Amino acid sequence: MEYNTDFLLNRRTIRKYTQEEVDNDLLNDLIKAGCRASTTGNMQVYSIIVTRDAGMKKELLPHHFNQKMITEAPVILTFCADFNRFNKWCILNNALPGYDNFLSFMTASIDAIIAAQTICMAAEAKGLGICYLGTTTYMAQKIIEVLKLPKGVVPVTTITLGWPAERPEQPDRLPADAIVHKEVYSDYSDSDIVKYYSQKESRDDSLQFIQENNKTTLAQVFTDVRYKKDDNIYFSKTLLQVLKDQGFMNQ
Amino acid sequence: MEYNTDFLLNRRTIRKYTQEEVDNDLLNDLIKAGCRASTTGNMQVYSIIVTRDAGMKKELLPHHFNQKMITEAPVILTFCADFNRFNKWCILNNALPGYDNFLSFMTASIDAIIAAQTICMAAEAKGLGICYLGTTTYMAQKIIEVLKLPKGVVPVTTITLGWPAERPEQPDRLPADAIVHKEVYSDYSDSDIVKYYSQKESRDDSLQFIQENNKTTLAQVFTDVRYKKDDNIYFSKTLLQVLKDQGFMNQ
Repeated sequence: MEYNTDFLLNRRTIRKYTQEEVDNDLLNDLIKAGCRASTTGNMQVYSIIVTRDAGMKKELLPHHFNQKMITEAPVILTFCADFNRFNKWCILNNALPGYDNFLSFMTASIDAIIAAQTICMAAEAKGLGICYLGTTTYMAQKIIEVLKLPKGVVPVTTITLGWPAERPEQPDRLPADAIVHKEVYSDYSDSDIVKYYSQKESRDDSLQFIQENNKTTLAQVFTDVRYKKDDNIYFSKTLLQVLKDQGFMNQ
Repeated sequence: MEYNTDFLLNRRTIRKYTQEEVDNDLLNDLIKAGCRASTTGNMQVYSIIVTRDAGMKKELLPHHFNQKMITEAPVILTFCADFNRFNKWCILNNALPGYDNFLSFMTASIDAIIAAQTICMAAEAKGLGICYLGTTTYMAQKIIEVLKLPKGVVPVTTITLGWPAERPEQPDRLPADAIVHKEVYSDYSDSDIVKYYSQKESRDDSLQFIQENNKTTLAQVFTDVRYKKDDNIYFSKTLLQVLKDQGFMNQ
């Protein structure tokens, strides 16, 4: 049997939600689908923290840079790399866990993201809207405090979930040729780059971005405004410290 | 409109494939769906290497621990965290990229996994079967050589893709209650662990695993045979070295 997957092509990220709740049974169905996705060695080394409480949303808000989806969406899901549960199972069963290292963090992060994306797609198939928040890795230390995550647990991404109150234009994507390499990586010449990014650069919203930010190129909006080197360096240091504090750097 | 997503619940990982090819148009459709998924700041900082050539599969084989899906599946997809393309675009546009750090690696890895899982689900909806290979992070250094990945590019996961030649039993999953936490993380008591893992431990295949490996508990099969501390430490060191070599540790 084949299934219609047009929802994968027609999707857009949703940042505005109606007041309508996301029913608990529906949320449980989405999570069930997420838990059926691939997971390393069937270890399921991830956890999902569900935030519905207004007070908790308010506590999370500054750590997600005050993006208003946090308080406006009915449900926030924080996906965590989690070896804590598995370690406890090992210890209870006379087995010595060796998962306090960087490889295990990557394994658990991949498990967490696979579950997150499966839940996002299951949600979108039901008409819900989602938005990923990259702030989770920037502010992991603060989110750990708010969500009371123990050692062995690191938040890796967050999604806001609710019924769409907007239908924004679909953003551009690079042509598939820019993303796909056949057999070996074919590195990009200057003219490849010009070709692949020309559509993005010529869009009205890109030109508006450049103007609003007083820049001369779209790339400068990324490097000088949205994803700055100094911020990246600062958040890299704090994230590596989080991995150490949460017990994933003992190699 | 609502879409039927039963394929998410009915799925199983497929390790045996028929001889039938995966049509190029079909593969392109799957990749198109993958590229429509969420990506940080719409930067699309990932690349996909498509392996169809028998010689290339043979080169990859030992680095995936000789798992025979590599040579038996018609298509291998290696998903890479990739800031190389974006960096080149920045430099061409008088913008100074600051993405040679650990945070940027995590950002790009998350982008890559989201694309991978979207393609997996699109594939399964069309009746194809997939298998994730965790060996990619273990053996990243060797895979970089085979696939000729430049600086700024790190492979994070691999999937084998083809038409199923098997329909294995669905493996167990932990109850959703074991994975989900409401508002804050509720840490596990010994009796929680016993409760959540009892079904897994009592399965016939688990008991067989224990016996085959001469162990006394299922957890020991994981710690002493499948995911050993010494291996994890060794692969953690090599993976961190890869991040350094590929230019992601300048913080």
